[in-house]
Amino acid sequence: MAARPGGHNLAVMNGPKEKVLTLDTMNACVKRVEYAVRGPIVLRALELEQELRQGVKKPFTEVIRANIGDAHAMGQKPITFLRQVLALCVHPDLLNSPDFPEDAKRRAESILQACGGHSLGAYSNSSGIQPIREHVAQYIQRRDGGIPADPNNIFLSTGASDAIVTVLKLLVAGEGRCRTGVLIPIPQYPLYSAALAELNAVQVDYYLDEDRAWALDVAELRRALCQARGHCRPRALCIINPGNPTGQVQTRECIEAVIRFAFEEQLFLMADEVYQDNVYAEGSQFHSFKKVLMEMGPPYSTQQELASFHSISKGYVEVVNMDPAVQQQMQKMMSVRLCPPLPGQAVLDMVVSPPEPSDPSFTQFQAEKQAVLADLAAKAKLTEKVFNAVPGIRCNPVQGAMYSFPRIELPPRAIQRAKELGLAPDMFFCLRLLEETGICVVPGSGFGQREGTYHFRMTILPAAEKLRPLLEKLSQFHAKFTREYS
Amino acid sequence: MAARPGGHNLAVMNGPKEKVLTLDTMNACVKRVEYAVRGPIVLRALELEQELRQGVKKPFTEVIRANIGDAHAMGQKPITFLRQVLALCVHPDLLNSPDFPEDAKRRAESILQACGGHSLGAYSNSSGIQPIREHVAQYIQRRDGGIPADPNNIFLSTGASDAIVTVLKLLVAGEGRCRTGVLIPIPQYPLYSAALAELNAVQVDYYLDEDRAWALDVAELRRALCQARGHCRPRALCIINPGNPTGQVQTRECIEAVIRFAFEEQLFLMADEVYQDNVYAEGSQFHSFKKVLMEMGPPYSTQQELASFHSISKGYVEVVNMDPAVQQQMQKMMSVRLCPPLPGQAVLDMVVSPPEPSDPSFTQFQAEKQAVLADLAAKAKLTEKVFNAVPGIRCNPVQGAMYSFPRIELPPRAIQRAKELGLAPDMFFCLRLLEETGICVVPGSGFGQREGTYHFRMTILPAAEKLRPLLEKLSQFHAKFTREYS
Repeated sequence: MAARPGGHNLAVMNGPKEKVLTLDTMNACVKRVEYAVRGPIVLRALELEQELRQGVKKPFTEVIRANIGDAHAMGQKPITFLRQVLALCVHPDLLNSPDFPEDAKRRAESILQACGGHSLGAYSNSSGIQPIREHVAQYIQRRDGGIPADPNNIFLSTGASDAIVTVLKLLVAGEGRCRTGVLIPIPQYPLYSAALAELNAVQVDYYLDEDRAWALDVAELRRALCQARGHCRPRALCIINPGNPTGQVQTRECIEAVIRFAFEEQLFLMADEVYQDNVYAEGSQFHSFKKVLMEMGPPYSTQQELASFHSISKGYVEVVNMDPAVQQQMQKMMSVRLCPPLPGQAVLDMVVSPPEPSDPSFTQFQAEKQAVLADLAAKAKLTEKVFNAVPGIRCNPVQGAMYSFPRIELPPRAIQRAKELGLAPDMFFCLRLLEETGICVVPGSGFGQREGTYHFRMTILPAAEKLRPLLEKLSQFHAKFTREYS
Repeated sequence: MAARPGGHNLAVMNGPKEKVLTLDTMNACVKRVEYAVRGPIVLRALELEQELRQGVKKPFTEVIRANIGDAHAMGQKPITFLRQVLALCVHPDLLNSPDFPEDAKRRAESILQACGGHSLGAYSNSSGIQPIREHVAQYIQRRDGGIPADPNNIFLSTGASDAIVTVLKLLVAGEGRCRTGVLIPIPQYPLYSAALAELNAVQVDYYLDEDRAWALDVAELRRALCQARGHCRPRALCIINPGNPTGQVQTRECIEAVIRFAFEEQLFLMADEVYQDNVYAEGSQFHSFKKVLMEMGPPYSTQQELASFHSISKGYVEVVNMDPAVQQQMQKMMSVRLCPPLPGQAVLDMVVSPPEPSDPSFTQFQAEKQAVLADLAAKAKLTEKVFNAVPGIRCNPVQGAMYSFPRIELPPRAIQRAKELGLAPDMFFCLRLLEETGICVVPGSGFGQREGTYHFRMTILPAAEKLRPLLEKLSQFHAKFTREYS
């Protein structure tokens, strides 16, 4: 009990008091949050790195963090134009330097022109710098074959995660059987499950079809929805396309069917399209939900509510058919955090509005960008090929995004042993993999998977000369692990 | 009602359907959030700026945004060393340029060394780059006269707001009369009221004493707490020192009394110390809660839970005596958003670990920093002097931070007119001020104030040559407004 006025000496004398904030008294929703991508396996990887630095002998010489899509950490080269313009924005004295191309200088000047006091150190409007919002709208319009985008419907954010959580926050309401339900794919990117747990909304799982390269099936959406209606009020449907962790790229037909479903069932659509520029597989093509929605015509194009998220450096969201009063509320929520970081906004501007053919930086920019994408495409293929040559591993084609999500067979004795240790079987596998090879990947249980199946997510980002030995090492470990527990 | 499977045509034919997300169906907590600093008055200021650009005639030629502490937008010059190092980090090709001092290069190299792939484009650990956390800890230790700070208790964040909301989030629990109550000062920085509304926690107001230069009074804390215990469970006490919007700098005695109070009453302490480097008044000195707490010795130093927030560019929080299990939960929450933006982390590093006397950049860095602080000190004095010369305006000394919060008398007829318009009287005053002079300040009602008193918050940041005419224009408007409604 808290001491009352006058109880001062009592409290002091009573010895150690209980903490105000303990696992028992803290926010229970926060406690339920899980985030596998940076979970226990990553903490262990950090420890191993430290041990290596301290000279502890290990069966490997470095920890390879294949758990996260961290391109630059994996050696991907920054795009020169982006870095030049950002340096000019940060330190405008450089505008007098002969070492920077004219178009980089022009771009930096135009960004600074739009900043308070011509400084990247000023705040911007809460929804982002106005000319950058306009460039984003133009980018979307080009992407969608001329279908208009209104800059007023574009909100810049601190990464796509920030924007996704903001929209989810608007949707959460009700209690008990009226609590908001949100449909998310399984496997999913765990930001969704984490945000829904924190917001105390109901996570409604729909399973992607592993046998059809993780395609989305509307019948499965319908099953999930009907079942959920017994215990919550489903109000939103989240789509991740290209898929994370699945790498699936949805067909146009699939997207149309999803939109029709959302319309019929009165669901707010949230399209996570952050990997829209990362499509590798022949025959796969990215179709934006916005474009398909608009091409379907009324009533879909005029009524279906949609928020579409993209992220290149910093993120943005475009909202379509959102109630204007709610959009004002969204604006208000974003204003409470003042504004997204300006350097990220500046980089976003360069990505949505890259050098044009007549600009001096055009050739190099295109060459660097194409090199990155071609390299990723080759690594996507290599990953699929190596894994599928291994008995007990099956890997769907990595059509897009930056990850493979192979399925692994685990022997019953390994599953038994994991249970004894209180671990998910694929967590047990991944921990052992980390301890013995230094390879850090995330168990499928962190993303969700059909019961009795096991997977891991591994990024395809490591440099080509590292990726092949890595895949082989991993495959060999799987064989050894299987033997050990057979 | 939502259509069921098979109801497709029905839904399409029924004409415009209702939106999923409307003011009626959205998150009611979000709807309750208010954020005056970027509220209706700022939206109107934006419109006015647009009208000016379109050539609409106004009684002024520019809108002066004195509503927000946006130093660079107000013409404050960036610190050269910060910009040099950041440019080098962003574009490491510049490391070969002769135009940068050696210590800037060394610093950039050491920051990049700590980044994945030596790139500012990589993710960092969720709590921030490890060597930067160590520099922050050393900075705190120097600030607090050698009292140790543990880097593991330091979390870097996306601005102080982000860290404050994270800690509040941990504290929120219970329902009905067991809902978490959080004591906040009135007037307050409206991030607090906004976050508490969003989290559905109970805001417990304690009033600062305007007659004693907005000092905090423990008897008033006790009154607020006792009253709150009737309808919620108060668990945390927020302090803003130096005060925002009040500019008050707390005495050491006051801080000791607050700590004793929090200890006796079992309250988690949250010390918002983001303006700790901005103290101007003679006789005023910043004392950190951490230092005072540690100097008070056991049981305070060993048991009282404290989170202390600072923000220079990007923010950080130091937690003291936090339950280790809860601290792990906090770490987890931060990991869901991956990591704070790297450019901000880099700037933070330079601020907490500035050039040393032997470094080539030392002299310029100190000169630039001192110039900024001396200029602010002069403007703080000027503001107080000009306002206090005006009948009907009374301004406490601006001891610290970046704002004045003068009290204004409003004639009863103006109050009456505001009521007719459905506006808070000081909002009515501020809107009229904006329309007639282009000066944008925030009404006191957005921060909270004793009933029947009226204030506004105005930043002291405008350049000295602009500030005096601005203060005079504002004073004249007050006189005119008073005449008009007398």
